[in-house]
Amino acid sequence: MLAVAVLAAGKGTRMCSDLPKVLQPLAGVTLLERVLNSCAALGQQRTLLIVGHQAERVQAALRSRREGPEFVWQEPQLGTGHGVQQLLVPLKDFRGQLLVLNGDVPLLRAETLGQLLRQHRDSDAAVTLLTARLEDPSGYGRVFCRDDGTVSAIVEERDCSGEQRLNNRVNAGVYCFDWQQLSTVLPGLGADNDQGELYLTDTIARLQPARQLDVADAGEIGGINDRHQLAHCEGLLQQRLRRLWMDRGVSFIDPASCTLSEDTLFGRDVVVEPQTHFRGRCRIGDGCRIGPGALIEGSTLGRDVTVCFAVLNQARVAEGVSVGPYAHLRPGADIGAHCRIGNFVEVKQSSLGQGTRVNHLSYLGDASLGDRVNVGAGTITANYDGVHKHRTVIGSSSKTGANSVLVAPLTVGENVTIAAGSTITRDAEDNSLVIARARQLSKANYRPLPENGEG
Amino acid sequence: MLAVAVLAAGKGTRMCSDLPKVLQPLAGVTLLERVLNSCAALGQQRTLLIVGHQAERVQAALRSRREGPEFVWQEPQLGTGHGVQQLLVPLKDFRGQLLVLNGDVPLLRAETLGQLLRQHRDSDAAVTLLTARLEDPSGYGRVFCRDDGTVSAIVEERDCSGEQRLNNRVNAGVYCFDWQQLSTVLPGLGADNDQGELYLTDTIARLQPARQLDVADAGEIGGINDRHQLAHCEGLLQQRLRRLWMDRGVSFIDPASCTLSEDTLFGRDVVVEPQTHFRGRCRIGDGCRIGPGALIEGSTLGRDVTVCFAVLNQARVAEGVSVGPYAHLRPGADIGAHCRIGNFVEVKQSSLGQGTRVNHLSYLGDASLGDRVNVGAGTITANYDGVHKHRTVIGSSSKTGANSVLVAPLTVGENVTIAAGSTITRDAEDNSLVIARARQLSKANYRPLPENGEG
Amino acid sequence: MLAVAVLAAGKGTRMCSDLPKVLQPLAGVTLLERVLNSCAALGQQRTLLIVGHQAERVQAALRSRREGPEFVWQEPQLGTGHGVQQLLVPLKDFRGQLLVLNGDVPLLRAETLGQLLRQHRDSDAAVTLLTARLEDPSGYGRVFCRDDGTVSAIVEERDCSGEQRLNNRVNAGVYCFDWQQLSTVLPGLGADNDQGELYLTDTIARLQPARQLDVADAGEIGGINDRHQLAHCEGLLQQRLRRLWMDRGVSFIDPASCTLSEDTLFGRDVVVEPQTHFRGRCRIGDGCRIGPGALIEGSTLGRDVTVCFAVLNQARVAEGVSVGPYAHLRPGADIGAHCRIGNFVEVKQSSLGQGTRVNHLSYLGDASLGDRVNVGAGTITANYDGVHKHRTVIGSSSKTGANSVLVAPLTVGENVTIAAGSTITRDAEDNSLVIARARQLSKANYRPLPENGEG
Repeated sequence: MLAVAVLAAGKGTRMCSDLPKVLQPLAGVTLLERVLNSCAALGQQRTLLIVGHQAERVQAALRSRREGPEFVWQEPQLGTGHGVQQLLVPLKDFRGQLLVLNGDVPLLRAETLGQLLRQHRDSDAAVTLLTARLEDPSGYGRVFCRDDGTVSAIVEERDCSGEQRLNNRVNAGVYCFDWQQLSTVLPGLGADNDQGELYLTDTIARLQPARQLDVADAGEIGGINDRHQLAHCEGLLQQRLRRLWMDRGVSFIDPASCTLSEDTLFGRDVVVEPQTHFRGRCRIGDGCRIGPGALIEGSTLGRDVTVCFAVLNQARVAEGVSVGPYAHLRPGADIGAHCRIGNFVEVKQSSLGQGTRVNHLSYLGDASLGDRVNVGAGTITANYDGVHKHRTVIGSSSKTGANSVLVAPLTVGENVTIAAGSTITRDAEDNSLVIARARQLSKANYRPLPENGEG
Repeated sequence: MLAVAVLAAGKGTRMCSDLPKVLQPLAGVTLLERVLNSCAALGQQRTLLIVGHQAERVQAALRSRREGPEFVWQEPQLGTGHGVQQLLVPLKDFRGQLLVLNGDVPLLRAETLGQLLRQHRDSDAAVTLLTARLEDPSGYGRVFCRDDGTVSAIVEERDCSGEQRLNNRVNAGVYCFDWQQLSTVLPGLGADNDQGELYLTDTIARLQPARQLDVADAGEIGGINDRHQLAHCEGLLQQRLRRLWMDRGVSFIDPASCTLSEDTLFGRDVVVEPQTHFRGRCRIGDGCRIGPGALIEGSTLGRDVTVCFAVLNQARVAEGVSVGPYAHLRPGADIGAHCRIGNFVEVKQSSLGQGTRVNHLSYLGDASLGDRVNVGAGTITANYDGVHKHRTVIGSSSKTGANSVLVAPLTVGENVTIAAGSTITRDAEDNSLVIARARQLSKANYRPLPENGEG
Repeated sequence: MLAVAVLAAGKGTRMCSDLPKVLQPLAGVTLLERVLNSCAALGQQRTLLIVGHQAERVQAALRSRREGPEFVWQEPQLGTGHGVQQLLVPLKDFRGQLLVLNGDVPLLRAETLGQLLRQHRDSDAAVTLLTARLEDPSGYGRVFCRDDGTVSAIVEERDCSGEQRLNNRVNAGVYCFDWQQLSTVLPGLGADNDQGELYLTDTIARLQPARQLDVADAGEIGGINDRHQLAHCEGLLQQRLRRLWMDRGVSFIDPASCTLSEDTLFGRDVVVEPQTHFRGRCRIGDGCRIGPGALIEGSTLGRDVTVCFAVLNQARVAEGVSVGPYAHLRPGADIGAHCRIGNFVEVKQSSLGQGTRVNHLSYLGDASLGDRVNVGAGTITANYDGVHKHRTVIGSSSKTGANSVLVAPLTVGENVTIAAGSTITRDAEDNSLVIARARQLSKANYRPLPENGEG
C-alpha cells in the first residue's frame, strides 16, 4: 500500500504574487500539476494534498483533474513536520509507505520517484531520502551517511560547521517513509529552532535505519521560491523538450528562442525557425516549416505546411498549406489542402476546401468555402447583425472581388464572380456574375475635397 | 566643494561609427548621459565635460538636459592627462575635490561613486582611485599597493613584467583628486611614452598618499571601445533590469529574449512572454500579460491588459483591454476599459469608450468613439482631405458595417447602424440606419471579367 | 596537380531525416556546398564527390553549381577507406596530391585547407593529416606523434588505453595524400574490425613519413551527425557572421537573437534590433535601423531605411524609407526614396516614386505609382481577372480615397483625386476627381438588421 502526500500549503512570499506559489505555471502547466503528474503512476491508493495558504484557489485549480487528490488542511502553517502531522487523522488506518514531496519541484521525473520507491521497498529502511550531489550545495541541508550507507544526520546549512559545509550531498525534500513508524514519531516533533517550526527532517534521527538514494540528474530536485528560479526551470524544461525532438528529427535554427509544450507532437524533418512557440495540444506533420515568429496553440497541421509570422489557435490546417506572414487562424478555422492564407487574413469558424486562396486583407468568419475559391483582397464576411452570427457559403471555383462584402446569411453558388467593390446581400446562382456598384463619374480640373482616408 | 569632470573628447575609432563614441546608446540612453546620471547626485558645485571630437554634436545631444555640464574644449586630444590639464583655467579658483571619470563607463553605479568620494574625504589621501579585482585583468593597467594600503604605482599592461601581470587589481579610470594638489602637478606631465600622450596616471606617483577602493561588482567598470563591448554592456544592463523586476513579482518566460528600459514600471503578477520589448516611459498594470512579440513604447496600461504581437507607441490602454495580434496603437490612442483591439487594426489620435470593439482590419484616426461601439471589419475613418485632418465622432452603442468608410468631419449619433459597404459623408442621427449602397444586379452564365483583386 | 575528394555517401542515420545528411542546410547553404566552397580556391584540377545514399538527390542539389564536381559512386558504403578506393579508377592516370575530406564539416576554413596543402607540399610527407587539440577529445580518434614530429599512429577511441585517451590531439578527418603512394596502399585495406568497414586511417601506418598540422581554431573541425550538432554549428556560424559585422560598425542590441547570411552586406552604423533575420543576398545601407522582428530576404536597402516588424522578400527600397510595422514587400516591390509603407500594407511587382505614402491596409500589385502619391487606407489594386494579371498606373500627386478599388488595367493621371469608397474601372484624366458612390440614405428609429461585419 502506498500513500503520496504533497506539501502545498506555503505562500511563497518571495514570488511577490497574488497566486499561491504552487499554481505558478511552467510551460503552461502549474507546478502543482507537474508534481501530481510525476507521481501519478506510482500505483498509490491515496494521494493527499496538504493545503493552507489560499487553499480554495488551489482546490479550484485542480477541479478539472480526473482523479483529484484528497485535500488536507494545514492551518496555520508551522513547518513541514506540522504539515505531515495533519495526515495522522486521515491516514489513521493506513498501512504501508508514505511518499512525501513538495509541490514546488516541477522537474522531478516519475522514474526517479519509482526508483526511490523500489529501493525503499527492497530494503530494511524505515525511511529513504532522495538526495543529490550538487556542485554548489549552498542553501541546502546536507545529508551525512555512515560507513554502512545508512543516513546518520541531516543538518540544515545554517547549523553546519565549516567542514560539514564541504559535504555536497543534499536533501532533496523527497521522502519515502514507513507510515507506521513515522506516525509514532510525528507527534513528538518539537519546534525548538530559530524558525519555531516543526521540521520533517527531525523525524529521520528517530527512524532507523534511514537510507538515501542519489538522484542521477541533480537538475531534477530544484525547488521554486522566486521568479528567477521559475524562469530557470522553464529554461531547463524547454531545453528537455527541444532535445527530445531534435533526437527525433526536428531542426531548430535557434533552439533557445523557441518554446514548446509537452502536448505538442512533431513529425520528421520539421524545421522550427527562430522565435516560434507551441502551446497546448498541437500536431505538426512531417516536413512542416514553422516560423520565424509563429505562435501555434492547440492546432493540427498536416504535412509540408509552412507558417511564417502567424498566430494559429485551435485551427486545423491540411497538407501543403502556406500561412502568413501576418495571418491569424482562430478557433474553428479548418483549412483544406494546398490552400493559401496570405497577409492580413483572419479566419474564424470557417472551413475552406482544397486549393482555395485567401491572399490578402480578408476576414472570413462563420463561412464555408468550396475548393479553388479565390477570395479577393479586402473581402469581408459580414457575419454579425449586432445580435446573432450568420453563415456565408461560397461554392467551388467562385471568386470574390476586391473590397467585396458578403452580408450573411448568404449563399453564393459555384463558379460565381462577385464584382469588386460590391456589397452582396442576396444569394447568387451558380455561374453568375453579381455586382452592386455605383456608376463612375468624373469631374475635371478638380481641387481636393476632404475625403481621402489618410493619417 | 566638489567638481566632477567627465572625459568625452575621444573619437572611439574601433566603433567604426560616424557617431562620437559617448553618444552611442545603451537601452535607449547614451553612454554619456548614463555617466552623467551616475554622478548627478554627488552634490557637486561644478560638472565639466571635456569634449573634442565632434564636440558640437556632443553639445547638441545634451541640450535638453535640465542641468547641462560646462563644456571644456580639448583640441587636439593628447591623452587623459592633457584632457584634465584643460581644467586648469576653468577651475583656477576652485577649492576641493575633483572627481574624474570617463564618458564610456555606463554601468558605474552612483553608489560606487558616492562610496569613493566618502572614503576619500574621510582619509588623508591626495588621490583615491577606484580599482577592481578582475578574473582576467588583461588589457588593464595594474594597481600596486604598499603594505600600508597606499598605492605605490600604476603600471600599464604593456609595461608590466611577467610577475606584475599576475596582479589582478586594475585601474578603473575613476579618480578622486584633491584639486589643489593635482593642479600643481598637472603642468609638469610629460609625454615620454610610446603613444606620445600625457597620462593622467602619471600624476599618481607625485600625489601622496594615494589610496584606492576596490569596487564590489567588477562588472561596473567596463568601458566601451567597440560594438562587441556595447552589445555586452547592453546585455548586462538588461539583465540588471530584468532581475530587479523578477524580484518584484514579474514573470519572464524567456528573460534573455526581452529588453526593458529603466523608465518602465511594472505592477505585480505581470507576465512577459518571449521576445517582448519595453522602451521609454511605460507603466504596466498588475496582472498584465504582454507578448510574445510585443513592442511597447511610452505607453500606459491598466490592470489585466493582454497584448500579443502588437506595437504600442504613446498609447493609453485602460484595464481589461485585449490587444492584438497584429495591432498598432499609435500616439494619442486612448483605449477605454474592456475594449477589444483585434487583428490588423490601427488606432491613432483616437479615444474609445468602454467596451468598444474594433475586431479586425480597421483604421481609426482622429476619432472619438463612445462606449460599446462595434466597429465592423474594414471600417476606415477617412480623416485626411489631402490638406487637413478632420475628426470623426461615433456615439455609444453604434455599429459600423463591414468595409464602411466614415468621411470626416463626421458625427454619428448614438445607437446608429451604418450599413455594410457604405461610404458615409453626412452626419447620422441617433437611432438611425444609414446606408449608401448600390443595388445588387446579377448576370447569369457569366465568364470571368478582369476585376478580382488577387495576386 | 591536386585532386580533392569529398566523402558524401553516408546516410546520417542520427539525423532522423529523409534528406541525405550532407544536404542539411546551415544558414541557408547545405553542408556539402559549404565544404565544396571551402575547397573551391585550392587550385585543384579535379574535384570528386563520392556519393552513395540518395546519390541522385545529392547530384540534383548541386546541379545549379557553376563548376560541379565529378560524381563517383560508392555502393554499398563500406567505410571511408572503401569510399576512397572508388577513386582508383577515375584517378588512374592522376599524379599529385589528393586532399580528402568529409562532406559534413561545414565550418572548415579555406585558409586552413590551404595551409595544410602548403605544409604538405613543402615537406617530405607521404600524407599530412589535419589534427586538433580539443579540451574534450572524447569521441574522436587520437593522433600520436614521434619525437621527430611524424605521426606514429591513429587510434580510434574505442581502441584507446586509459593513458592513450589522455592524448587530446584528435584526427580531423582531413588528409592530404601523395596519390601515387596512397593508390598502392588502398587495395590492401582490410575490414578486420568491429564495424566490418574499411578505414582510411589504416593507410596512415603504411604511408611514411606521415605528418600532421594542428588547426588553430578547433571549432572548425566539428562534424555534424545529429540535429544537436547542426544547431550548434548554426550557432557558431551565426556568431562568426555577427562578430565580423560588429567589427565593421554594425550594432546588434541582442546579437544572439539575430541570424545573418553570408551574402548579406551591411553599411556603417546599421542598428539591428532583436529578433531580426537576413537571408540570401541583401545589401543594407549606412544608418539603417532594422527590427525588431524583421525578416529581410534577397533585398536591397538604401541609406537610413527603417524597418520594424516587416517581411521583405526580393524588394528594393531606396533611402529614407520607413517600413512597418506589419508590412510585406514581395518580389518586385521597388520603393522610391522617402516613401512610407505603413501597417497592413502589401506591395508586389510594383514601383513607387519618391515620397509616396501607403500608410495603411492596402494592397498594391502590378502597379506603377508616381511621386508623392497618397494611397488611402483600404486601397486595393484589383490586378487579377481570374486568368491574367493587369497593371495599374497612378500619376504623381494623385490621391486614392479610403476603401477605393482600382480595377486593372487602369491608368490614373497626375493630381487625380479618387473619392473614398469608389470602385474605379475607367481611366482618370489629370487633375480630375473620380467618384463611384451610391447616395446616402437614412432611416430613423431603426432596429439593427443583420449586416455588420463582426465576430
